[in-house]
Amino acid sequence: MSTRVLEHPSIEELRLESVLHALADPMRLEVVRFLAEAGREVACSEIDLAVSKSTGTHHYRVLREAGIISQVYRGTAKLNSLRRADLDTRFPGLLDSVITAAGAG
Amino acid sequence: MSTRVLEHPSIEELRLESVLHALADPMRLEVVRFLAEAGREVACSEIDLAVSKSTGTHHYRVLREAGIISQVYRGTAKLNSLRRADLDTRFPGLLDSVITAAGAG
Repeated sequence: MSTRVLEHPSIEELRLESVLHALADPMRLEVVRFLAEAGREVACSEIDLAVSKSTGTHHYRVLREAGIISQVYRGTAKLNSLRRADLDTRFPGLLDSVITAAGAG
Repeated sequence: MSTRVLEHPSIEELRLESVLHALADPMRLEVVRFLAEAGREVACSEIDLAVSKSTGTHHYRVLREAGIISQVYRGTAKLNSLRRADLDTRFPGLLDSVITAAGAG
């Protein structure tokens, strides 16, 4: 099984502005909430965003480039997971408060 | 002393996406941190943003329209304060985690 590697920022490279910008979108918040609840690697196809494939891909890329999710290819599938530990280390409490707020919205 | 009234969203009207978007900017984060530390009404002129007056005015308006700050005219001065209680009620822990993260940045 081939595994292509996508670029991810390191913990030290995470920027608050980028993280907040990435979270400031209802679709991307939906992905984050889904991944938080799943607590495992999830294929893009499992999350129904009701947008075109290219729009969906864009949202996942924004989340990955901000350091919020990790994406890895497994064969033809792209699997996503939340970088919860990294975010909690760098920005304590932020992700939890956003997920709680998104759930209450 | 005349007091013109600017529009502010009510607590119920606060939207997570708008709040996150408003916070996703270094200048606006600087204003928020300044107001949080001051804990009182602050005139725009007290916060040195090193941008043009119109750019500064834009940033304050984004913060006000998102419900993060309150702005009130007192004569010719526009005074700003953080809507900490409203934000803490609507999005518990969010503002504190952002301010902490911004300070650690």
